[in-house]
Amino acid sequence: MTFNVQGFNMQRYFVTPEQFGELTVVLRGEDAHHMVKVMRMKSGDEVIVTDGVSREARVALKELTPSEVTAEVVEELPMDREPLWQVTVAQGLPKGDKMELVIQKGTELGAAAFLPFQSERMVVQYDARKEAKRLERWSRIVKEAAEQSHRSRLPAVHEVHSWKQLIAAVADYDLALFCYEAEGHGPSGASGLGDRIRQARESGVLKEGEPHSVLLVVGPEGGFSAREAEEIQGAGAMAAGLGRRILRAETAGLAGLAALMYESGEMGGR
Amino acid sequence: MTFNVQGFNMQRYFVTPEQFGELTVVLRGEDAHHMVKVMRMKSGDEVIVTDGVSREARVALKELTPSEVTAEVVEELPMDREPLWQVTVAQGLPKGDKMELVIQKGTELGAAAFLPFQSERMVVQYDARKEAKRLERWSRIVKEAAEQSHRSRLPAVHEVHSWKQLIAAVADYDLALFCYEAEGHGPSGASGLGDRIRQARESGVLKEGEPHSVLLVVGPEGGFSAREAEEIQGAGAMAAGLGRRILRAETAGLAGLAALMYESGEMGGR
Repeated sequence: MTFNVQGFNMQRYFVTPEQFGELTVVLRGEDAHHMVKVMRMKSGDEVIVTDGVSREARVALKELTPSEVTAEVVEELPMDREPLWQVTVAQGLPKGDKMELVIQKGTELGAAAFLPFQSERMVVQYDARKEAKRLERWSRIVKEAAEQSHRSRLPAVHEVHSWKQLIAAVADYDLALFCYEAEGHGPSGASGLGDRIRQARESGVLKEGEPHSVLLVVGPEGGFSAREAEEIQGAGAMAAGLGRRILRAETAGLAGLAALMYESGEMGGR
Repeated sequence: MTFNVQGFNMQRYFVTPEQFGELTVVLRGEDAHHMVKVMRMKSGDEVIVTDGVSREARVALKELTPSEVTAEVVEELPMDREPLWQVTVAQGLPKGDKMELVIQKGTELGAAAFLPFQSERMVVQYDARKEAKRLERWSRIVKEAAEQSHRSRLPAVHEVHSWKQLIAAVADYDLALFCYEAEGHGPSGASGLGDRIRQARESGVLKEGEPHSVLLVVGPEGGFSAREAEEIQGAGAMAAGLGRRILRAETAGLAGLAALMYESGEMGGR
């Protein structure tokens, strides 16, 4: 607990495994600039670095220039701040910068990955040429949000999937849920997210205290077509309602993710 | 269920109880403009109107001008789309337009009310002169989000409370929780939101299937001071963690609200 409280106020940086030597870590580019120019850090200051995969450490800064900072490992830290359930938020490409909101807030909330996909009722026109640039921007948002929220692992941002690719991916997860407006309107409805979780626990798909991979599929603004709903159910995903209100696309993803984190025990109570 | 599915595609408008006659409803101003100019509705078209308090009805439009639309009540509808728990989201005034995000998404998610408050570590400078204008803007966001998400009741937006006023309000709720970063980091922590809910159920504060009023207090970007945490606990609020990550102020409010809606049975499973 002492560490947690300390670590709260300590700046975090994600580096690549290559930058993370056994005893020293080298930070470059925007990170070095941020340390020297924005945070005005000095030799002896401590930060936390993580490679987002297998190592996390408290390090002391040694040599600082705005383009490169060298630091010494003071203490290896356990990577124990990650949720038990690895939730991938698959989001039908929403309008404007809504995907950025989902990625930023979803990273804070503990998503393991984001999977944008195309579908019939998409309101936006998908532009493959802008793809690389957008993925780069989304990855930057993930990194910033992960540092700010003290994630140990960096959520993955998958390339934009076609509907067929999404359908093929459903089988890769222990549990796949898709948010469907006609489902689960309140306690009387028999297929809300909570019902699906209960069913999955009862049938042994989800086991108490064990790690699981969960796919949460949220449609674009226009929702899913009846054909799509049928196809994804055929692939093994279950329709799950999020309540009696109509949620915007980006709200649905975040509400579903928060509920899954809650169910996985991230907020205690299990 | 037939109604729900129909109602999904029907436009909704919130009117004042005064506009809602026994057999006719009169819509004016922005609503009339929206119907005639934006939606291009015609005589005979049906919409849903609600006074946000006690009546909701399907109405057929009779006479339309861009400044006034008269409609006849076709069918009184049950106001049954509201969550069992009335959750008030008390949010320490955040920077920029973050409060608008909390209000928009919180309305979709089912919040009963919003209560902005001032506290020690507020990053923003509170400006009482701008107060009226801001409250008006927040109320407009509530109305739009409530119509879009098919709320039956219009969430209240309280005036900005001082810390003292907030403390005095704690006793008005069946259960008051405040999100505190040092609390409830994961399953090992003993005071996550889920633990607090379980305790409240065990002690009879929350009763299964009964309506309850819950106050969810979220600090500003700077969090609560130790003195504030002590004061609000003294007033009867319980510290509740939302997981092992550091959430932005606006994310914490929405995550906590989604978890409370989930617990109240809004997404099934209870």
